[in-house]
Amino acid sequence: MTTTTFRRDLANALRFLAIDAVEQAKSGHPGAPMGMADIAEVLWRDHLRHNPANPQWADRDRFVLSNGHGSMLLYALLHLSGYDLPLAEIKRFRQFGSKTAGHPEVHHTPGVETTTGPLGQGISNAVGMALAEKLLAQRYNRPGHAIVDHRTWVFLGDGCLMEGISHEACALAGVWGLDKLVAFYDDNGISIDGHVAGWFRDDTVARFRAYGWDVIGPLDGHDPIAIAAATAEARQSRGRPTLIVCRTQIGWGSPNKAGSHDVHGAPLGAAEVAATRAALGWPHAPFEIPEALRAAWDARASGAAAEAAWQQRFAAYRAAYPALAAEFERTQAGGLPEGWPEIRAELLAQAAAKTGGIASRKSSQNCLDFLIERVPELLGGSADLTGSNLTAGKGSVAWHAAGDKTPNYLSYGVREFGMAAIMNGVALHGGLIPYGGTFAVFSDYSRNAIRMSALMQQRVVHVLTHDSIGLGEDGPTHQPIEHVGSLRLIPGLDVWRPCDELETAVAWAEALERRDGPSALFLSRQNLEQCGDRAARAEEIARGGYVLRDADGPLQAVILATGSEVGIALAAQRELAAHGVAVRVVSMPCCERFDRQKTAWKKAVLPPDVVRIAIEAAHPDPWRKYVGLVGEVVGIDSFGASAPAPVLYEHFKLTAAHLASVVVETIARESGSDGDF
Amino acid sequence: MTTTTFRRDLANALRFLAIDAVEQAKSGHPGAPMGMADIAEVLWRDHLRHNPANPQWADRDRFVLSNGHGSMLLYALLHLSGYDLPLAEIKRFRQFGSKTAGHPEVHHTPGVETTTGPLGQGISNAVGMALAEKLLAQRYNRPGHAIVDHRTWVFLGDGCLMEGISHEACALAGVWGLDKLVAFYDDNGISIDGHVAGWFRDDTVARFRAYGWDVIGPLDGHDPIAIAAATAEARQSRGRPTLIVCRTQIGWGSPNKAGSHDVHGAPLGAAEVAATRAALGWPHAPFEIPEALRAAWDARASGAAAEAAWQQRFAAYRAAYPALAAEFERTQAGGLPEGWPEIRAELLAQAAAKTGGIASRKSSQNCLDFLIERVPELLGGSADLTGSNLTAGKGSVAWHAAGDKTPNYLSYGVREFGMAAIMNGVALHGGLIPYGGTFAVFSDYSRNAIRMSALMQQRVVHVLTHDSIGLGEDGPTHQPIEHVGSLRLIPGLDVWRPCDELETAVAWAEALERRDGPSALFLSRQNLEQCGDRAARAEEIARGGYVLRDADGPLQAVILATGSEVGIALAAQRELAAHGVAVRVVSMPCCERFDRQKTAWKKAVLPPDVVRIAIEAAHPDPWRKYVGLVGEVVGIDSFGASAPAPVLYEHFKLTAAHLASVVVETIARESGSDGDF
Repeated sequence: MTTTTFRRDLANALRFLAIDAVEQAKSGHPGAPMGMADIAEVLWRDHLRHNPANPQWADRDRFVLSNGHGSMLLYALLHLSGYDLPLAEIKRFRQFGSKTAGHPEVHHTPGVETTTGPLGQGISNAVGMALAEKLLAQRYNRPGHAIVDHRTWVFLGDGCLMEGISHEACALAGVWGLDKLVAFYDDNGISIDGHVAGWFRDDTVARFRAYGWDVIGPLDGHDPIAIAAATAEARQSRGRPTLIVCRTQIGWGSPNKAGSHDVHGAPLGAAEVAATRAALGWPHAPFEIPEALRAAWDARASGAAAEAAWQQRFAAYRAAYPALAAEFERTQAGGLPEGWPEIRAELLAQAAAKTGGIASRKSSQNCLDFLIERVPELLGGSADLTGSNLTAGKGSVAWHAAGDKTPNYLSYGVREFGMAAIMNGVALHGGLIPYGGTFAVFSDYSRNAIRMSALMQQRVVHVLTHDSIGLGEDGPTHQPIEHVGSLRLIPGLDVWRPCDELETAVAWAEALERRDGPSALFLSRQNLEQCGDRAARAEEIARGGYVLRDADGPLQAVILATGSEVGIALAAQRELAAHGVAVRVVSMPCCERFDRQKTAWKKAVLPPDVVRIAIEAAHPDPWRKYVGLVGEVVGIDSFGASAPAPVLYEHFKLTAAHLASVVVETIARESGSDGDF
Repeated sequence: MTTTTFRRDLANALRFLAIDAVEQAKSGHPGAPMGMADIAEVLWRDHLRHNPANPQWADRDRFVLSNGHGSMLLYALLHLSGYDLPLAEIKRFRQFGSKTAGHPEVHHTPGVETTTGPLGQGISNAVGMALAEKLLAQRYNRPGHAIVDHRTWVFLGDGCLMEGISHEACALAGVWGLDKLVAFYDDNGISIDGHVAGWFRDDTVARFRAYGWDVIGPLDGHDPIAIAAATAEARQSRGRPTLIVCRTQIGWGSPNKAGSHDVHGAPLGAAEVAATRAALGWPHAPFEIPEALRAAWDARASGAAAEAAWQQRFAAYRAAYPALAAEFERTQAGGLPEGWPEIRAELLAQAAAKTGGIASRKSSQNCLDFLIERVPELLGGSADLTGSNLTAGKGSVAWHAAGDKTPNYLSYGVREFGMAAIMNGVALHGGLIPYGGTFAVFSDYSRNAIRMSALMQQRVVHVLTHDSIGLGEDGPTHQPIEHVGSLRLIPGLDVWRPCDELETAVAWAEALERRDGPSALFLSRQNLEQCGDRAARAEEIARGGYVLRDADGPLQAVILATGSEVGIALAAQRELAAHGVAVRVVSMPCCERFDRQKTAWKKAVLPPDVVRIAIEAAHPDPWRKYVGLVGEVVGIDSFGASAPAPVLYEHFKLTAAHLASVVVETIARESGSDGDF
């Protein structure tokens, strides 16, 4: 048993690494690391099961610092535990290209499980990780073979608990009974505006009990014995996640700044650093850690042993259940099923054979009917719009109605942001490919989690249906106008707006094959005519933009369209042809994908000297990047209205007749200058 | 006392108006109106203080249907109470141009207080309304003169309670002790995916007590006596808002569909409508309401009397406190203070006199220091970033530290979405102009409420600081890249990104003068050089885009810049001039404002045949609408990084040298075609 005095020294090693790094960087957040160091010491040294030499070990415990501004606490822990994060990197805290960014970034620093900083999302990611663990344990564990058996530990602060997303995610953690999820609440009574009592008076204990959590504490977050006892108790929980409420002092150890918001987000300053060294009896130079402390922190030997034991167990599992073990390894590595090329081909062939009017949300469901049986790692869901998003396929088994079946579908409730952040956690955990639906307009609610899936390069599929005024009577609150354009601005997100079932199938296939980022599918409520098949069309769709139907005669203009407006473009093309105007119709289901093509492809699709007219039932401005100032855009630059969809399409002039007239006018003034308004 | 049988008939009048309207529209949500009709009857007939002839009466009670999909319940209530909503409009439910849109829309239908549909926001608007009432009562009421004394009543459902924003807003309602806020929870156990027990198991009673609310019930939401007793009890609450938990059956009265999600969002169908008529003993034809029921619903006489009594009290108040009464009437009408033109002029003159480097967030605070004393209806706040957003001015008095002063500032806690929706409620209530700050990147969290402020045309000022990679070390999670461009896509939102204190002051003045919509101010963390004054500059700034410094010689190119990049543009201009290249610098602080100018102004600023290069530390694509395909954009199309700001500006090539080289290259290939990639 580590003595309390030694434990304090171990914790102080964390504190001073944080203090010194923030001081050197001249910016950062020392308060949280100083406040949570004692909790971190108990958790990391006595409970966290991890192997610093292999941060990708499948059965490691996950640790999430939801209050990500306290990043130096995590970097200090990783450094001292023996991860590949040398002192040189600690000294380069917050500098360009260092492995110690201002907030923890997954893939950037070994041992960081998720990128945190936007408050409330770390705990939500953690709920996703614990969910994944529980689902994978159900799928893969067999009697005597618990190959999936790890915990998810979270640190969070007042800010995370004030954020609405904590309500969504923690309520779900309760519903799902994620008993291997343990969160330590840094209850320090301080946020940036000062003492939280002025704006945060929740009875958090009662609140979490209302979600079905076990709550331990409040306890003294600077008392290692109390923390150790609480952690041990939390490990015994069955059927409920646990919140451990730790009363702490922000900036603990700083004689003049502890307990005040001054210590939250700024260096202590040389004088106060010296005073803190004196007060805590820490005579060591900046960044200097005594060898005895280093030795006690070093988790490499225990970590290697822990993983070796698991590898041995996994070898026995593989011997007993070779197929399951192979699938486990494949899905952990992120690979698609064996025979995927054939699966993809069959999916596309089925889609290409479709005729008639089919809503693209329905096409998406047709794809899911096919894919769910063949890609078992798919984990579907919807924010309480299953019947509208059509996210459940024939093979979907809802968690709440699974009985003794293995669930692969979640009703997330009306919790868009929580769903998206939980999906990020599932993807980060590995072993499952999450997709989830809501109305496209409510991508606003989940937007920052969609952004985070892009920033973290996670394979998450955001299914966004009712993607335009075509949803009709529900009116402007439910009609996305600016959403497709604004999501296209998120770096790294592929936004698909398919025009028929074949394009929808390609979007799904590409979204699953894409291992380094998320995809968003914009899908229609209303029926769309199928655009027919031809050799190579599927391959062309995958390029994001392609000639769907070329002009019959010397090219006078190019119409670019997406989704539900492709049919309008084709009708306009016919109308124009009847009047001797030859135009090409380009379908542009994924602008990002098109933008990544080589110049030759782009020029072949959009010949440089031919005027272009874009049509999309959305804000027109984003299309200027393709049509320039010479071209035109038929779109909607105001909010929608409540009426049947066909009436709205007429009202907003999203018709073949109007498009044709715009094309004719644009061709007529083609000689005009680029700068014309 | 109305008998229970008669009450049931009165409620059934609501039910059948809803049933018949949904049936006629062939779409809509009958379930909630049928489930909540009994509660609505008690509240509207016995408690709601309103005057159907004057929906703008300042001291009316506010009623918010947070579960906005139940719009027909509200339309039926308004119609029967005597608002200007004739039966013809009920019959045109969900049709183009009718006053009965799919979801309730403020300004569109008399008596609708806020636009609802996006779940959780209605209750949050209501918190804002109740907050405004409490603040205005503090400001204006005097002993014996309670001229502000009304309640805010809310209906909400499971969906609202699952949404995270309900956590944020309801926690604040508890903190603020909004005892005139009463919410009726339609606890029907059903959401779109089915029985909520599978995904929503919160102990809502405990949860709301944890926020400091009084909770009454669960009670039978179809028992008028129980509802009446609970409502009367809620009126007695002191210091706490009240939640009344009403157990109801969705679609109550429908023999075969009640209690199931089938009745949530689709017409009952002719057969079930007939069965419901039979079951409830309602022999009347569609849309036919017996005269006795109409008479009992008619609130016009009582409403006129209630308002007349208040007008009499207000006359006495005006006699006793003429100055206060005048201010009350002015602010209720939305007018700015007497002498506003002089205030504006002085604000701009002070700003124009500034020199040196000043962060635009600091310039904004300088404006607030001046404005808060002169525009008393300003109600400031921040989502726990007061010291970073610099949203508190010298005259700010924080609610939690007001003592016996009148507060005009709120620490909203880390609750961006809640803050924005509460501000919408404050603006809708009238009498105050809300502004609130957060980091620009977290506009993602509040985005749909910003959208709602635009859709509802509310004067709300969103102060978004740390507006680019210029925030430095906090890294990519905190660096907005796509935000300014994506907010510019929201119809009706004016987005300002000022380059110095004068532009900041104009932005503030315009935001306050703008009575029909919200404004977002993107403000820098880092210092920006002042661009100097000259006659008419302020007036030009107000046009959104103007020539800040013209070329010295025949114009070869135009540089467009905003905010922190204007200084870079000016430096590039000097550098280019030294090499004999004459370029104009256009500052474009507000694209929306510029787009609304007449063509002559736009052509004068951006001459049609001169190539344009835009620079903004943000996603480049949106600038194509100004530079076309011939021009260039210097921006950032990836996520940022964690490092000191100057390092990042170098790394992302946001420098005068790079900009100058792009200008030179662009001029050189100006002969190239518009369609070049």
